[in-house]
Amino acid sequence: MYKDISFEEYSKEFVSQLAKGAFLNVKGKDSINTMTIGWGNIGVIWGKPILMVMVRYSRHTYNLMEEANEFTVSIPLNGQLKKELGFCGTKSGRDFDKFKECNLTAIAGKVIDTPIIDECDLHYECKVVYKQAMEPGLLDENINKNYYSNHDYHVIYYGEIVASYIKQS
Amino acid sequence: MYKDISFEEYSKEFVSQLAKGAFLNVKGKDSINTMTIGWGNIGVIWGKPILMVMVRYSRHTYNLMEEANEFTVSIPLNGQLKKELGFCGTKSGRDFDKFKECNLTAIAGKVIDTPIIDECDLHYECKVVYKQAMEPGLLDENINKNYYSNHDYHVIYYGEIVASYIKQS
Repeated sequence: MYKDISFEEYSKEFVSQLAKGAFLNVKGKDSINTMTIGWGNIGVIWGKPILMVMVRYSRHTYNLMEEANEFTVSIPLNGQLKKELGFCGTKSGRDFDKFKECNLTAIAGKVIDTPIIDECDLHYECKVVYKQAMEPGLLDENINKNYYSNHDYHVIYYGEIVASYIKQS
Repeated sequence: MYKDISFEEYSKEFVSQLAKGAFLNVKGKDSINTMTIGWGNIGVIWGKPILMVMVRYSRHTYNLMEEANEFTVSIPLNGQLKKELGFCGTKSGRDFDKFKECNLTAIAGKVIDTPIIDECDLHYECKVVYKQAMEPGLLDENINKNYYSNHDYHVIYYGEIVASYIKQS
């Protein structure tokens, strides 16, 4: 069903799809959750394949991420799951079981304990090797004004990609 | 000679080539310099195309970067410029005019003032929109031991990609 890929093989698809939305999946002590992300980076740091994602302090995912220290990213290609991306980007896992509400299937990751979303095509499993809260004073003024007028800054998570695979058609 | 590309089009080539080396070019108040990098990320953050690079405090490039607040990355494809990447990754711009020593041609960027290296194939011009010094306490212990035993940490620069282009064959 899934074919392993080298971490960089679908970098272009990862970067292109982000603006349309991807699912960031996390498993805390007592629950799993997914949220829609539209920002992220892929590359090589410290000699390791790295996927970078960002989570605001206010998010339920932030608490789960701090418990788990690992995450997966599941990406629909070809414009699928628009409605589900919309729901998971506006509702909180504190109020909803998003998997249930959206009929999304959480299946076990190949390497880590966090699930992936089986309705998606492209998947990355990541272990956090570095994280850092943003430092507002060092940010471009316009970006600060546009995205952080409420002071709800992001924590930046650098995940080592420990598995990457794509759905076989 | 050069063809404009969408910033994400060659993401895979960017990520793949990094392990073999790319040139990070900076223009300070009084001089230009280039250094070899093997790490970096590409993606979308704050709704902008972003290239992330890292520079250690000890590097001559660090001082120039703080003056310039912009940089370019020039990437040879197909295994070219190995000798030049070796030189520019081990010698300091404090001691050498690396462009002269390596016969590398610095030509003006299309959008920003920092030059690119004309012997390379793939080029990104970037304006720094965010930067942050690494926080050692939040880093994976093995990475800390392997790369920072001398406490010479990196500053992480997030550059908005304002131009990207490739040499036409």
